Amino acid sequence: MEILLDLFFIIVFAKLLAEIFERLRQPAVIGEILAGVLIGPYLLGLVAPSDITGLLAQLGVIFLLFTVGLETKPQAILRVGKKAFLVAALGVIVPFAAGYALQRFIVGGNNVEAMFLGAALVATSVGITARVLAGLGLLDAPTARIILGAAVIDDILGLLILAVVKSVSTTGIDYLNLLLTAGLSVGFTIFVALIGAAALTRIAPRIQRLRIGEPFFIFGLILCFALSVAAEVVGVAAIIGAFLAGMALAEAAEDNHELHGQTRGVTEFLVPFFLVNIGMQLNLEIFRDVSVVLMALVVTLIAILTKLVGCGLGALDLGWRRAAQIGVGMAPRGEVGIVVAQIGLTLVTFEGTRAIDDRLFGVILFMAVATTLIAPPFIKILFADEAAARGKIGADDAGGILPDKLSNIG
Amino acid sequence: MEILLDLFFIIVFAKLLAEIFERLRQPAVIGEILAGVLIGPYLLGLVAPSDITGLLAQLGVIFLLFTVGLETKPQAILRVGKKAFLVAALGVIVPFAAGYALQRFIVGGNNVEAMFLGAALVATSVGITARVLAGLGLLDAPTARIILGAAVIDDILGLLILAVVKSVSTTGIDYLNLLLTAGLSVGFTIFVALIGAAALTRIAPRIQRLRIGEPFFIFGLILCFALSVAAEVVGVAAIIGAFLAGMALAEAAEDNHELHGQTRGVTEFLVPFFLVNIGMQLNLEIFRDVSVVLMALVVTLIAILTKLVGCGLGALDLGWRRAAQIGVGMAPRGEVGIVVAQIGLTLVTFEGTRAIDDRLFGVILFMAVATTLIAPPFIKILFADEAAARGKIGADDAGGILPDKLSNIG
Repeated sequence: MEILLDLFFIIVFAKLLAEIFERLRQPAVIGEILAGVLIGPYLLGLVAPSDITGLLAQLGVIFLLFTVGLETKPQAILRVGKKAFLVAALGVIVPFAAGYALQRFIVGGNNVEAMFLGAALVATSVGITARVLAGLGLLDAPTARIILGAAVIDDILGLLILAVVKSVSTTGIDYLNLLLTAGLSVGFTIFVALIGAAALTRIAPRIQRLRIGEPFFIFGLILCFALSVAAEVVGVAAIIGAFLAGMALAEAAEDNHELHGQTRGVTEFLVPFFLVNIGMQLNLEIFRDVSVVLMALVVTLIAILTKLVGCGLGALDLGWRRAAQIGVGMAPRGEVGIVVAQIGLTLVTFEGTRAIDDRLFGVILFMAVATTLIAPPFIKILFADEAAARGKIGADDAGGILPDKLSNIG
Repeated sequence: MEILLDLFFIIVFAKLLAEIFERLRQPAVIGEILAGVLIGPYLLGLVAPSDITGLLAQLGVIFLLFTVGLETKPQAILRVGKKAFLVAALGVIVPFAAGYALQRFIVGGNNVEAMFLGAALVATSVGITARVLAGLGLLDAPTARIILGAAVIDDILGLLILAVVKSVSTTGIDYLNLLLTAGLSVGFTIFVALIGAAALTRIAPRIQRLRIGEPFFIFGLILCFALSVAAEVVGVAAIIGAFLAGMALAEAAEDNHELHGQTRGVTEFLVPFFLVNIGMQLNLEIFRDVSVVLMALVVTLIAILTKLVGCGLGALDLGWRRAAQIGVGMAPRGEVGIVVAQIGLTLVTFEGTRAIDDRLFGVILFMAVATTLIAPPFIKILFADEAAARGKIGADDAGGILPDKLSNIG
């Protein structure tokens, strides 16, 4: 019974704070994370993290990445163009390098910690920016399309970096192994994007003809678990497999409203456990230490500046203003950064220690939350002229325009 | 990683055997239970029951009963008429009495075991019969409507009996307590059916106006967990709360396709864990004992005869043939009987022992599976004239006619 009560508290508080944050026009995800902080062992102590909440959190993040993958059509990525690729690549390299250098050479942390901080700074949360742009009626503006395309690509690059970081953390620096992991991850991603997606589109009608109820959804579930297990077997994170499973199905399932509705049900049910679990693991005590607060502020500043510089550089030929729009638009971090922190917190390294400690976990979480809150007002200012030219619409009207994923995550 | 692999095996084998059973025109649920027997510790040993599989199984049965409740509209129950009530009531009393008497006075078991066997014999699995009748194009025949109405009512009566049985098992025979449990269960059910459903229908538009994503589905989740916890607090099974939550929402959610689709996603994902977990707990060794095999056969025979006699008596004024149609139509047992067995297997009684042992669990499971397999051919024979008169359609065409729940469970 205690278990059911735990689950009840988690869902109720997650959704209560999500609703409050939505009304304050802030991202619901942050509300759900704060719900975890609130009910967790460091504040109210209503719910303690357990094997059970941990399992549901793990399933939650697997379904979250599966859903993100489902919205990532390989063909669409190939169409985003060189500009978005350049923006994404520079927007990955600069933050990773800066995060690594900060932790390794200034803070004096070890190699594993430095890699995790770098990896956590990589991936943009496309949901936040997309919601703001949708609120301004600018989702189809040229810079908006570059931002959305680049954000999807840096999700993928972020997951590839995570695969390599995880490999190095658990086996030490072994160049052969590192090369193998990188090669496997890249090869697997390309294989799924090019061949898997096409194959699934071809066999989709056959799956629909199975006699079991909801065959396509069930097939998706099985593929998701199969690739998650396969990813763990080759040593990369399960979520990467879940993402690839989603991406492989994205085109075949494009018009399958039942699959999307059913997946959404599971995601809505399980993702709060992931977000609340994140919050429950945040030890608020760490912020009594001034050096941690300072670090959190510095990392947040670096997170914003490095995307501004990296992505801006990639788009500089479009002029300063557009480069700034793109840079700030790419600044919010979200799910993937938090996932990286979460994996770091529980991963046992080759030295037998945890990859990152409570303090660095708290710093990364602070950064993810802060960039998400800080960026939107700046995005609105930088896009004000375009919005005025188009005759802007209210943010409340954005719901219908947004694809499911964006309104979901944002 | 072992956990993900377990979940993968469970889903794959459940759906593989479900598909095979569908192709053999047998109920998919039985395939999923047998998948558990196959991969469980007593045969292949691929997956062992654990806290984790147990939790997912528990969530699965909660969502299963929530879904059953969602298809049970209080207003529709009030309309089924006296005939269906009489059929349901006699179809509950006779099997319970026979099961109790067999275990208590002939086998010589204790009071708790006897009550559990009686309770497991109570509830009809409407899905099986409905599928057969739909295949014959007779879902709207007068006797079919009595069967469907009575089956819904005996689900409810079965859950009320379970509440009382559970109470007596854990606290001993204490008439005050027994009366309290019975009163609470009945009162709560009536309250939810009459007042809760109406209140929810009135506040539904307000729920829809919440800012969080999928507000109605989230509200349903919260209500489901809240009533499950409340049910446990007052000492009845959590599934009863889940069922009542579904029933309270049934009218308000009638045309809410999103809610149904999302609930279906969670149910399709989690119910296989419940069914496979049931199968995994079946110790095949018990059937080496001839007395257990004999008992299984006798209980199956009693299960069929008592519904034939009880329900038939209630419908005798319609003539022998129709009474027989109704009696055989009510014979298949399913989910609720299995849920009762499952609760009995894990419940610790006031005497500190388990309510039922591996042998009685196996006997009940055998009965549930056997009645489901045996009844359909007889139903077809008894309805052959009506079907011929209407020009019967193929069973394969039934899918579209059936409400979600029926095709789901059947």
